[in-house]
Amino acid sequence: DLPFALISGPCQLESLDHARMLAGRLVEVTSERGIPYVFKASFDKANRSSLVGKRGVGIEAGLDILAAIRDELGCPVLTDVHTAEQCAIAADKVDIIQIPAFLCRQTDLLLAAGETGAAINVKKGQFLAPWDVQNIVDKIASTGNERILLTERGASFGYNMLVSDMRSLPIMARTGFPVVFDATHSVQLPGGQGTSSGGQSEFVPPLARAAIATGCSAVFIETHEEPSRSPSDGPNMVRLDDMAALLDQLQALDRVVKA
Amino acid sequence: DLPFALISGPCQLESLDHARMLAGRLVEVTSERGIPYVFKASFDKANRSSLVGKRGVGIEAGLDILAAIRDELGCPVLTDVHTAEQCAIAADKVDIIQIPAFLCRQTDLLLAAGETGAAINVKKGQFLAPWDVQNIVDKIASTGNERILLTERGASFGYNMLVSDMRSLPIMARTGFPVVFDATHSVQLPGGQGTSSGGQSEFVPPLARAAIATGCSAVFIETHEEPSRSPSDGPNMVRLDDMAALLDQLQALDRVVKA
Amino acid sequence: DLPFALISGPCQLESLDHARMLAGRLVEVTSERGIPYVFKASFDKANRSSLVGKRGVGIEAGLDILAAIRDELGCPVLTDVHTAEQCAIAADKVDIIQIPAFLCRQTDLLLAAGETGAAINVKKGQFLAPWDVQNIVDKIASTGNERILLTERGASFGYNMLVSDMRSLPIMARTGFPVVFDATHSVQLPGGQGTSSGGQSEFVPPLARAAIATGCSAVFIETHEEPSRSPSDGPNMVRLDDMAALLDQLQALDRVVKA
Amino acid sequence: DLPFALISGPCQLESLDHARMLAGRLVEVTSERGIPYVFKASFDKANRSSLVGKRGVGIEAGLDILAAIRDELGCPVLTDVHTAEQCAIAADKVDIIQIPAFLCRQTDLLLAAGETGAAINVKKGQFLAPWDVQNIVDKIASTGNERILLTERGASFGYNMLVSDMRSLPIMARTGFPVVFDATHSVQLPGGQGTSSGGQSEFVPPLARAAIATGCSAVFIETHEEPSRSPSDGPNMVRLDDMAALLDQLQALDRVVKA
Repeated sequence: DLPFALISGPCQLESLDHARMLAGRLVEVTSERGIPYVFKASFDKANRSSLVGKRGVGIEAGLDILAAIRDELGCPVLTDVHTAEQCAIAADKVDIIQIPAFLCRQTDLLLAAGETGAAINVKKGQFLAPWDVQNIVDKIASTGNERILLTERGASFGYNMLVSDMRSLPIMARTGFPVVFDATHSVQLPGGQGTSSGGQSEFVPPLARAAIATGCSAVFIETHEEPSRSPSDGPNMVRLDDMAALLDQLQALDRVVKA
Repeated sequence: DLPFALISGPCQLESLDHARMLAGRLVEVTSERGIPYVFKASFDKANRSSLVGKRGVGIEAGLDILAAIRDELGCPVLTDVHTAEQCAIAADKVDIIQIPAFLCRQTDLLLAAGETGAAINVKKGQFLAPWDVQNIVDKIASTGNERILLTERGASFGYNMLVSDMRSLPIMARTGFPVVFDATHSVQLPGGQGTSSGGQSEFVPPLARAAIATGCSAVFIETHEEPSRSPSDGPNMVRLDDMAALLDQLQALDRVVKA
Repeated sequence: DLPFALISGPCQLESLDHARMLAGRLVEVTSERGIPYVFKASFDKANRSSLVGKRGVGIEAGLDILAAIRDELGCPVLTDVHTAEQCAIAADKVDIIQIPAFLCRQTDLLLAAGETGAAINVKKGQFLAPWDVQNIVDKIASTGNERILLTERGASFGYNMLVSDMRSLPIMARTGFPVVFDATHSVQLPGGQGTSSGGQSEFVPPLARAAIATGCSAVFIETHEEPSRSPSDGPNMVRLDDMAALLDQLQALDRVVKA
Repeated sequence: DLPFALISGPCQLESLDHARMLAGRLVEVTSERGIPYVFKASFDKANRSSLVGKRGVGIEAGLDILAAIRDELGCPVLTDVHTAEQCAIAADKVDIIQIPAFLCRQTDLLLAAGETGAAINVKKGQFLAPWDVQNIVDKIASTGNERILLTERGASFGYNMLVSDMRSLPIMARTGFPVVFDATHSVQLPGGQGTSSGGQSEFVPPLARAAIATGCSAVFIETHEEPSRSPSDGPNMVRLDDMAALLDQLQALDRVVKA
């Protein structure tokens, strides 16, 4: 088994300068440790809890920033798409396109994503059993594209709460594709603050450690230099200054499990 | 409170003849009883469990059939849309456009639907708390369109199962908009048959009765002359020949509750 | 199918005078309507959320009050037991002994209850699937006692919340035994107030109506002349003065469903 | 933080010879590694799914075996009690008495257990939120006994399935008491085989690793030389021969997390 990779970034793009600062620090901290790193950021938040939530910089400006990060820093970049039309446009500038959890069963989106030839990270819907990702994999693979990643981001557990079922990581791994644990969105409290989602950032480190201990391939952790100022997902983000210590722990655990 | 309405049809369109036969029977059985009736059918099943599932006749052919039903039989017609682009196209031919449950938080889709001026039926996501539909309502109402219906179709309850929380009907009614209980999809067993969803049609009548007894505005019940031959949702459909007796019961219950 | 019965009372016994007043009013309101009625009260609350909660009058004083109610008012009485030893003692004074939901799988308690020959009302655990009550029924029936009632009181749904799955009523009815819907405890918010359970009394009427509409045999509704003064379960009780109107509605619905 | 401890044994006692063999092997494998070890076995299974399930050797014979194991092998022993009366009897022979999950809110049982002065391991009910264990702790501590352990054994997740919420380990740790992860019962499928509970023993190692990675104090893992011959819980047991390798992994992870 390969050592774990880190997918990380600021949730939504704020500006090139901000993306460059964050990605630069993350490249530094991961390359020092030999951890494969993918920069992730969204150009649009298409399913905010309410209209009040900030949407993002838009697809053109966003993809330009992502391409600049890739070129300047040499790390692969990942972004999420929301329509079939966006797939080819995004795949032109990024390495991995991501299918949001709510959209994980939209056939046309999966096929359009597959047809780009880009790597595709599918987030398992909060409503989906882990064994049912096989149907998603089959939809994408029908395009001839088998560069697939599968992400656990929590399952619905009553109202306004998710639970991370750690069994889903080995279950999804049976597909043969790498499995990512999204430690940021798994601790979301959906809709829990009226017009936005709450979060429990204190559980990101223990859940990320737990996921690595099961033997998964990657973790996704959103970060910000000042989470309370992030335009989205602040309540479940890890502070940038705390990433190095967390990665040290995850790397040591990963080495034990994959020894 | 107004008497309950029925939304019913064959799940996905098969042909004009088939739609005409079903709609004709449903118009007959509801008009005899004075029950307001809306014909519902899908032109595309955009989120089938797997690629193996039949997708449908397509948007052009489908809307033509729906428009023909409306013209010939005089009943309003409803169909579901899957992209922002489809909203205006569909609204040109149908009375009510429906937002699928998985897509109930996609802002662009809600805004595009709202802007058509058509009535909009939003199915509450399996992952959404009933009080969180207020944010959805606000997104649509921001377009100036307040012709909104809200549908309960079951909440995630562990894996491969939904539960119908009857509290959600009065909770969603607090928005001031009519609330529909979807008795067909609430008894779905999502992904429960490998490449398709199973269902428990034996629970459609008791759950429909329960919903009416809480005082909701409408029920949605899919029907087919031979459910086992339906290209989708067969396991949770009511046989066409059984609709009249069920409607008699629902109507009597509705009169008690709204007396 | 027989018309529905009402099981009702003050949750925990406060005094003979109080029990007499409540039972008297309930006998009056049910006998006027021809609704079979069972008085229910607890002599001990053995599983309060915290030590702060009031426990009750004790088994001796409690059973004396229950026996007095039965003798004076002529209605059957029901109380819950918590140990195997209490079964025979309680069965000497009451008509129906009740097994609390948390204890529904305790074999010795079920056998001791069965051996008394009294009727036994088992509350389905919040953790139990409705089809799994068959094993409970079999444990009791092994004593030769088949005077069994089964009660739905909500299933765990995430933390601090229950959901009433109305499917469980017809599913439990497949055992051949009468099924009771406990509208009071189904709207409990377990542990939701720190050292006590919260509740949503506004949902008691719609859920009771929904349960009757499925066709169940009885409903259990706790009541108090002033719920906010009840030593337990106040937040989910129906005010005594509101019982008559609710019963009228339930009776009319019951007649429709069992016509 | 102290290194993790192992609680392990055969689920239910079969005979002194069998207990001696298992405990001997477990003492050997843990002492070689410096892992604190507690032998656990039940003298009675008081809440089997159905009457068909084997109950156990009984309290007298069972406690004698446990006392013999303690004397011969020098390891502390743990057993579960089901009534208030059993507490003092059991505490006379064992070091730790365990409160079963279904009984975790039975006040009299908790008080009787507390009054023995023995250490008490409370299994959190499948229906209980992790923050609500504080009320349980307070009940026990009211007796002056603060030798308390708290065990996570899975939360209800729909029907016939549990989910292990790894957040519950740090949440329960806020009480200040050691937290145990029960990797055996967390993978139970309650009632999932008709008259007995199924299990998913393949998930015991990843969940045990995940729990250790969060930083918990102990893990509970049932074992048997031949799980398929165990009179209970066979489907979720780890084979005795596989324990050493699993413990090596857990110990290495524990050292990373507590470094």
